Amino acid sequence: MKITDDHIAQSIEALRAIGREFHGRGWSLGTSSNYSIVLSRSPVRLLITASGKDKGRLSTDDFVIVDEWGKQVDGGPGAKPSAETLLHVVAARQPLIGSVLHTHSTWATCLSERYHSAGAMAIKGYEMLKGLEGIKTHDHTERIKIFENTQDIAALAAELQSLMQAGEPTLRFGFLLRRHGLYTWGRDCIEARRHVEIFEFLFEVIGRSLLLGNVPL
Amino acid sequence: MKITDDHIAQSIEALRAIGREFHGRGWSLGTSSNYSIVLSRSPVRLLITASGKDKGRLSTDDFVIVDEWGKQVDGGPGAKPSAETLLHVVAARQPLIGSVLHTHSTWATCLSERYHSAGAMAIKGYEMLKGLEGIKTHDHTERIKIFENTQDIAALAAELQSLMQAGEPTLRFGFLLRRHGLYTWGRDCIEARRHVEIFEFLFEVIGRSLLLGNVPL
Amino acid sequence: MKITDDHIAQSIEALRAIGREFHGRGWSLGTSSNYSIVLSRSPVRLLITASGKDKGRLSTDDFVIVDEWGKQVDGGPGAKPSAETLLHVVAARQPLIGSVLHTHSTWATCLSERYHSAGAMAIKGYEMLKGLEGIKTHDHTERIKIFENTQDIAALAAELQSLMQAGEPTLRFGFLLRRHGLYTWGRDCIEARRHVEIFEFLFEVIGRSLLLGNVPL
Amino acid sequence: MKITDDHIAQSIEALRAIGREFHGRGWSLGTSSNYSIVLSRSPVRLLITASGKDKGRLSTDDFVIVDEWGKQVDGGPGAKPSAETLLHVVAARQPLIGSVLHTHSTWATCLSERYHSAGAMAIKGYEMLKGLEGIKTHDHTERIKIFENTQDIAALAAELQSLMQAGEPTLRFGFLLRRHGLYTWGRDCIEARRHVEIFEFLFEVIGRSLLLGNVPL
Repeated sequence: MKITDDHIAQSIEALRAIGREFHGRGWSLGTSSNYSIVLSRSPVRLLITASGKDKGRLSTDDFVIVDEWGKQVDGGPGAKPSAETLLHVVAARQPLIGSVLHTHSTWATCLSERYHSAGAMAIKGYEMLKGLEGIKTHDHTERIKIFENTQDIAALAAELQSLMQAGEPTLRFGFLLRRHGLYTWGRDCIEARRHVEIFEFLFEVIGRSLLLGNVPL
Repeated sequence: MKITDDHIAQSIEALRAIGREFHGRGWSLGTSSNYSIVLSRSPVRLLITASGKDKGRLSTDDFVIVDEWGKQVDGGPGAKPSAETLLHVVAARQPLIGSVLHTHSTWATCLSERYHSAGAMAIKGYEMLKGLEGIKTHDHTERIKIFENTQDIAALAAELQSLMQAGEPTLRFGFLLRRHGLYTWGRDCIEARRHVEIFEFLFEVIGRSLLLGNVPL
Repeated sequence: MKITDDHIAQSIEALRAIGREFHGRGWSLGTSSNYSIVLSRSPVRLLITASGKDKGRLSTDDFVIVDEWGKQVDGGPGAKPSAETLLHVVAARQPLIGSVLHTHSTWATCLSERYHSAGAMAIKGYEMLKGLEGIKTHDHTERIKIFENTQDIAALAAELQSLMQAGEPTLRFGFLLRRHGLYTWGRDCIEARRHVEIFEFLFEVIGRSLLLGNVPL
Repeated sequence: MKITDDHIAQSIEALRAIGREFHGRGWSLGTSSNYSIVLSRSPVRLLITASGKDKGRLSTDDFVIVDEWGKQVDGGPGAKPSAETLLHVVAARQPLIGSVLHTHSTWATCLSERYHSAGAMAIKGYEMLKGLEGIKTHDHTERIKIFENTQDIAALAAELQSLMQAGEPTLRFGFLLRRHGLYTWGRDCIEARRHVEIFEFLFEVIGRSLLLGNVPL
């Protein structure tokens, strides 16, 4: 597949719009978060937000293009990939994943701490689960993996790669990093954005349910 | 009544505006929610959002028109009615219901769980109750039905039809589906939108009152 | 003082902007709330939102002008003053009150219930108190009156009139109606809007402080 | 360094945009908050919002320029510096501080009360800490100073000056005033705005974690 300039420009505009919306909702404050779109599969080319950029005000220069090892092959002046690019690359190696969105919300941060010791967070019995691609009924339990946070992204990426290749069921739609945030993905950035909205909704429901003393699971 | 193209176009614009607003408030995240407007009564024609569309970014093609059995008679290319269309149709059979709005909020989800075992949620003594059409005083208790969530929409629609025909008082303004969301309605989409705002406000008040230890009912 | 058309038009635009903002923040959902501006003092002429209008989408016709007894002397086609107009009129009889804003927020509703039995809510020791006109230090306790909610607005207006004439200190900046909302005022609608923001901020702080177990007073 | 009119105009526009955003998020309600930018260092010239202005609607006249003692040297008609200007001046004497942003949020107000007796608030182990300039790992504890609130700004400014000169580690990125709000800063207003977002995010996380019963520290 040849990557055209139009394809890149449209992908950049899609991620800029996602950035404005998520920053507005408080899911990508500071210069947190990274968003990516697979531009081609052979060779692998991933468009990803550059390190340290304000997601609410992304310019067209705030992106880089990396290969299947996360090595930069193109990008705006001064734009560099962040260390976490490797996690996007690992996810994007799966054939059905065309976009990866990483966000930082207050509820994801709080719940990743609360459920970390269990290794995963279970989300059970909510209609909104049907917003995750392929889930056909609310009568379902989705378990989302929680990794310990780390600055050794290479080691985490290797562990993620190994678990995803083995078909780890708690990695079907994404994962949480403890006290850090959410990674989720989809066939394209529209599906990935929907998955962010679904998870953030469910995290808020579970957080409020815990406060109300409902049994949330 | 003849349905004109202008009537359809205006109805579509009204529902698109509602979608942008409710998505912004977090009441219609992911591709959740469905909105409908009665276009005519003989024959019954209902304009309704198509299945699986993003309510914050509805295009003019993201709608279908269905008959009194929920069968599609028109719609944008590739647009299909969702299974829940039947619930809109059942409500719209009532002569005074001209629009049905279904939303998913975090508070509605939490409270539908909390009060589900009682079969209904009581809302008592709030001035905002007067925003429900025909309620003239805060000194009123409105009980809103809570159904168990289900994927068997046909069975739920039959139960709803039977209860509404019998004049079930907890179905005067709408109902909750457990761990799912709110259905409410009005003479037109302006009244229905107002009812959504009123219920969502009251759900948040009751949720916060529970957390504060006020006796909310 | 002669009321010019320009004066009326500017006052209408100011209240429409306030409506859009407060509706957006969730302080004027449904068709709740009423906003007024004193147009002249002799004779008394008060511009006020008409009954039952959506405050987020006020048109230029959604206003009426009333006299010192709340009797309508002008207004858009079909526009009628609401019953609560009398409370605005009573407040506006005070020489330093040029605008009255009535809002419905979730925190005001919850806290008016919690502190109702004490007859007033005390707000003590917050820097934001200095946003209330004339308060020069955070080392201050402002007590805001809480009335029982009622549909007998004439009786409430008479009680309010009597208390304000007697210089009741808990009515310096406004009052709460139990399970209903806030009335506040200022020299003009800019000061009144500031007072709404200050009170809503402080209500949220006190609500969250109660949840956190801080001693808020 | 010569201060050009363009430099002043751009700085004013940057602070107006910050005001619109922070007011929208509820961090600068009423006429609370003050924002400043260092225009030059010799002589010291600080552009700062004038006293009592609405931060959501700052006009180009709502600013003053002060010298290293906080004395006004220029400004819009009728614009005066607020008493708290001195705190901005003290911070801006540090060579690496080019902008100071003071905000009032509900969570900052609540947490400054809760942790006041400890003299500082510890923020530990969150990925978002890396949004504070120079923090390279989540495995970090940042302690932010909490001062008792006061109206004697001169005395507080002297204490702040003394502590900052002594390299007080809890003043690296800013401080809290009890029941009042946050001061934070950065090399420029972009970095300072990022620090506001980071602190506000972390305050909300810690507030919610306390409510959830997580051990947040």
